[in-house]
Amino acid sequence: MEAFFNPRSIAIIGASKDFTSISGKPIKYLLSHGYEGKIFPVNPKYKEIGSLQCYPSVLDIPEPVDMALVAINYKRVLPVLEQCHEKGIKFAIIFSSGFAEAGEEGKRLQEEITALARRTGMRVLGPNCQGLVNLQKNITACFSASLENKPLVPGRTGFVTQSGALGYSIFNMAQEMGVGFSFIVSTGNEVDIHSLELLEYMVEHPDTDLLVAYLEGIKDGKLFRKVAGRALELGKPIVSLKVGRSEVGQKAASSHTASLTGSDKVVDAFFKQNGIIRVDDIQDITDIAGLFSKIPTPIGKGLGIVTTSGGAGILAADTAVELGLEVPELTEETRMKISKVIPDYGSAMNPVDVTAQVINDPEGFMNVLDAMLDSPDIDALVIVVTMIYGAAGERLARDIVDVYKRAQKPIALCWTAGDRLMENCFAILRKGEVPYFKSPVRCVKALGALMRYGAFRRSWLESKDALAQVGAAVEAEAAPAVREFLTACDSRLTEHQGKELLSRYGIPVTAEKVAASEEQAVAIASEIGYPVAVKVDSPDILHKTEAGALKLFIKNEEELKAAFHEVLTNARSYNPGARINGALIQEMVQGGTEVIVGINNDPQFGPVVIFGLGGIFVEILKDVSMRVAPFSYEEALAMIREIRGYGVLAGARGQSRKDIAALADVLVKVSRMAVELEDEIRELDINPLLVLPEGQGVKVADALVIRKEG
Amino acid sequence: MEAFFNPRSIAIIGASKDFTSISGKPIKYLLSHGYEGKIFPVNPKYKEIGSLQCYPSVLDIPEPVDMALVAINYKRVLPVLEQCHEKGIKFAIIFSSGFAEAGEEGKRLQEEITALARRTGMRVLGPNCQGLVNLQKNITACFSASLENKPLVPGRTGFVTQSGALGYSIFNMAQEMGVGFSFIVSTGNEVDIHSLELLEYMVEHPDTDLLVAYLEGIKDGKLFRKVAGRALELGKPIVSLKVGRSEVGQKAASSHTASLTGSDKVVDAFFKQNGIIRVDDIQDITDIAGLFSKIPTPIGKGLGIVTTSGGAGILAADTAVELGLEVPELTEETRMKISKVIPDYGSAMNPVDVTAQVINDPEGFMNVLDAMLDSPDIDALVIVVTMIYGAAGERLARDIVDVYKRAQKPIALCWTAGDRLMENCFAILRKGEVPYFKSPVRCVKALGALMRYGAFRRSWLESKDALAQVGAAVEAEAAPAVREFLTACDSRLTEHQGKELLSRYGIPVTAEKVAASEEQAVAIASEIGYPVAVKVDSPDILHKTEAGALKLFIKNEEELKAAFHEVLTNARSYNPGARINGALIQEMVQGGTEVIVGINNDPQFGPVVIFGLGGIFVEILKDVSMRVAPFSYEEALAMIREIRGYGVLAGARGQSRKDIAALADVLVKVSRMAVELEDEIRELDINPLLVLPEGQGVKVADALVIRKEG
Repeated sequence: MEAFFNPRSIAIIGASKDFTSISGKPIKYLLSHGYEGKIFPVNPKYKEIGSLQCYPSVLDIPEPVDMALVAINYKRVLPVLEQCHEKGIKFAIIFSSGFAEAGEEGKRLQEEITALARRTGMRVLGPNCQGLVNLQKNITACFSASLENKPLVPGRTGFVTQSGALGYSIFNMAQEMGVGFSFIVSTGNEVDIHSLELLEYMVEHPDTDLLVAYLEGIKDGKLFRKVAGRALELGKPIVSLKVGRSEVGQKAASSHTASLTGSDKVVDAFFKQNGIIRVDDIQDITDIAGLFSKIPTPIGKGLGIVTTSGGAGILAADTAVELGLEVPELTEETRMKISKVIPDYGSAMNPVDVTAQVINDPEGFMNVLDAMLDSPDIDALVIVVTMIYGAAGERLARDIVDVYKRAQKPIALCWTAGDRLMENCFAILRKGEVPYFKSPVRCVKALGALMRYGAFRRSWLESKDALAQVGAAVEAEAAPAVREFLTACDSRLTEHQGKELLSRYGIPVTAEKVAASEEQAVAIASEIGYPVAVKVDSPDILHKTEAGALKLFIKNEEELKAAFHEVLTNARSYNPGARINGALIQEMVQGGTEVIVGINNDPQFGPVVIFGLGGIFVEILKDVSMRVAPFSYEEALAMIREIRGYGVLAGARGQSRKDIAALADVLVKVSRMAVELEDEIRELDINPLLVLPEGQGVKVADALVIRKEG
Repeated sequence: MEAFFNPRSIAIIGASKDFTSISGKPIKYLLSHGYEGKIFPVNPKYKEIGSLQCYPSVLDIPEPVDMALVAINYKRVLPVLEQCHEKGIKFAIIFSSGFAEAGEEGKRLQEEITALARRTGMRVLGPNCQGLVNLQKNITACFSASLENKPLVPGRTGFVTQSGALGYSIFNMAQEMGVGFSFIVSTGNEVDIHSLELLEYMVEHPDTDLLVAYLEGIKDGKLFRKVAGRALELGKPIVSLKVGRSEVGQKAASSHTASLTGSDKVVDAFFKQNGIIRVDDIQDITDIAGLFSKIPTPIGKGLGIVTTSGGAGILAADTAVELGLEVPELTEETRMKISKVIPDYGSAMNPVDVTAQVINDPEGFMNVLDAMLDSPDIDALVIVVTMIYGAAGERLARDIVDVYKRAQKPIALCWTAGDRLMENCFAILRKGEVPYFKSPVRCVKALGALMRYGAFRRSWLESKDALAQVGAAVEAEAAPAVREFLTACDSRLTEHQGKELLSRYGIPVTAEKVAASEEQAVAIASEIGYPVAVKVDSPDILHKTEAGALKLFIKNEEELKAAFHEVLTNARSYNPGARINGALIQEMVQGGTEVIVGINNDPQFGPVVIFGLGGIFVEILKDVSMRVAPFSYEEALAMIREIRGYGVLAGARGQSRKDIAALADVLVKVSRMAVELEDEIRELDINPLLVLPEGQGVKVADALVIRKEG
């Protein structure tokens, strides 16, 4: 990948003399931005383009070529790629459209390109993409008009985008706002090189501190997880605009870059558990990247707000609370320091309202900022200035530049006023490299995203080892015995088999055994203790209630004997051909809260564990939480707390508190099992899992397991 | 109020020669913006200020004065106001701070100002405010630095703000973006003139089409409702940034403008039922006001999206769906028209992706726009352009200006690219008066807010008469009989009394009567039909279950007799001093879904009706909806559909559908009762109301009513 980002020579195939066309612009941009490698236009129509010699084909170029930009009709792409391979070119970037996003013919051609890339080892970016820019090295293998602006602003943000037009327009706006980038790559249909590979490269790159990804589909959820993990280790936030939240959006994505989008809820869960900052709007990207480059990364959620306008402070506080930040009350000590220097119609509570009085007492304002920054509960500070202008505004701007430079904690500034009025003030801020917002909401949102990231990262680093242990267990115990057991089952396991499987992973299930005779039934029941349930055990009878092959709350031996015979008789008459192993004699668990735990397979991320309360909570309220497997105990707790009905388990309104620790333990074990048996299990539904009062554990009362067909 | 917005002469009390000070700036601004009335500086220190004669006191001014601006220390405000009154001044605007927002002394002074205003009839704005600007008449009775910009941009948006600093900074930014205003008034602590009075004036003003309100507290919920109703009739949207959503924010609001904020959920409900557009950020105000002034008001929620970038289209579609808009599938006919003119790697589905090919085929792009605008399902159009620049961009901009002029449907344009690159294109748009956004999300949000407003207004106009009838019923039936009945009850009504009250409003309750003897009990039960419930009827026994004074599912006469005696005996031994009217013999209703219906009194809006499913739905999930009373049947239906557990009533997952019509009818009747008995009832809780299967109605099973103490 290093060579992909740093080609020493570039051929432009289909090169045009028209520098406003897709096949002309890359030449113009490579020249004008000072590319230091060699440029080889390829077009049989021309001898030269500008001062550059032009070749009839890549094979005619007398020197080695690292990268080819292919900007010709889609029908001619494949033979040209063959030539590129013959020439020994390592990387081809296909700008042309007309592939999978266009219809059947294009889809077929696209598959042939993939095959060619696999066969030859030549790496291909695109098609239907706008190419690559390496701002550190002035490499502009790209036709985006955003390269009209000169000079480009290098920086430490790496950007991968599946949409060329949108991605480069974000880049363009960010550049004009002074936000620098290390790299930007548009990946289009991703026949070969895909977004996650590029992120994997960028995350390790010393010149890149923040990763931005515009995504329509996610090709390799597991690689994404690995990259996200590295990013967390290195403290490089990933900011992602993942579109296709709605059904309409998903349909449009499939026609745009031919992306297959999975469930958006899984994406949300994945981002959450990997500390990826999900944003909703393109301006969020610029806001966060611009701020991040100038401040220390926040490490907690305690926000201090200092404002010259009470109204703006309230708005900032509302926003912070909505984002899950804390706006802590100030200590007596901090309040005292502040009260001394603000007028009595201001406020020494957080948000601190210093009022426009700051005009007359700039030193007081600085004292307030220092008092806030010194406060141990405050992890980061938002300053909101409104209409302070002229000499007072300029002094304030200089003071803020000062604080910015010496502060150990992150500060975000919002200055709500027009550019014309504040021209001089804003110039001071820009010169002092202090980013400023015009909206208190956007200011808090950008800082808040980084604060939540910082808080998440801190706890992630703490629980990382625990997660690694879950992972290690998966590797170590890779249980051939379990697989063997599964092979002996039908594709749909019986209840008893399902529980057997779960118990092998240490998940508590109801005490139960299959009885082949009345005597066995009696012996088992007396071992388990009454009351018991009696159910037919047969791989051929799925609906036991319907078959009359299920009896509950059997209280004594007499009832048991009757139930044993009734269940078997009913089962046989319901399905005379059924294989019947006997009757399952099962412990009756009482007094637990019913929850469900399931495994689904997501096309992007693999096995996902789903959790919710039983019955209408899941069926009508859709009150479920989910995580991509595997995950740590901490994450399982977060998953439990996340459902709206959490109070039912936590003991709200006089109910008893349930055994949440045991529940979290089951979730972790299920997540481990989901990964270990990914190739064996299509679907798992524990419904219900009974969660007993605190200290009494949990128990699987019923489970449905469906195997993947060989 | 007309005179308030159009003073013919203004005195500035405490006038300063320093034109950067609060008491100097208004003079500078009145002069520089061309105020046509007379300006009288008042300050015993000066003979003149600039070219204006300065007076020792208002009483020395030889001519009549309409308005006084008071910019002196808060301690001297009161005597000065007395002088103003003596001078016959009609309006005083107090800029000074230091009143209720500062502490006890200020609060006391503020109360005296209120008293003075009441006593003298002189209207007072403020204190702690920045004053008034009438942009139509160049009246700048205000000290905000936003008036440094010249000229001001007049327009048709009226703006009321409780925060001077924040409000005028929004104004300042909007003005620099070319968004015009008719009026802006900062109201501060609102001792006398308050926001809603000003909105009431503006809504009727022929030069004002859109109202904007920054609010921290709402002084008069009923007047707000009246204003909102007029605004809906006239088709003038109200856009409001109401802060204090969070507890921290509410606390800060009380220290800022001394506002009392009520429950934010009630505010949400009130805004929703009155079509008020609630926004979260200051930029939303500019976005919506800027767009509204240039387009016809949308009338429905069907959004068409046309984009040059698939990615931007997906983002726009996601946003639209999230906002509750529709992104309708296009008809075969529309798709055919579009397919003809876009490349096959584009998309003729909504969102329509015309691709950058638009550069080569501008006419095709226009055909797409026309096809979309002609489509009957499309109520409004969003166009998203990405990096089309240079000559092609300029042509596109001109084409869009063209479409904007002739389109009958509203269009919003987003052009995601930097200003530098698009300088010429954007200049064409500005000249053509086409507002443009840089973010697809903000573009859809602004247009979407107006689309939802339009759709709401249409249905509001349809159900207006029904609501008026609810109102009329309230007036007409004003029931002295009900009041008399209530007077005879204790402050806490018995269950039976509560139901009696409800049944007088036509709300179905369980069949029941109080039996004083065994014989009466038997007679009542046989009239009602078994099974019945037997409960003690006593104003002194609140917890019937605890007292053992409640028996359910009594199946026959024998059981009834036993129950009758047991209930009364238990009641007497539980509370020997209790007044006991007998035993309530009550129908047992079975098979209904339990819901709760309640009335709360909100300090800002008065009686609010609350609805939710019973049990944990309300207690743990807080799954309730609410509306300020009274409301129409349509609104009651919306209220029912709004809860997350709606599926339980609607018959999701194989459950039977419940009688939602009868439930809505009860909500309307409760809302009527809430208004009619506002002064009598403190609290009402119908818990549970049983909602029977569709067609079988509803029945109140228990109700708690608490009267307001005389």
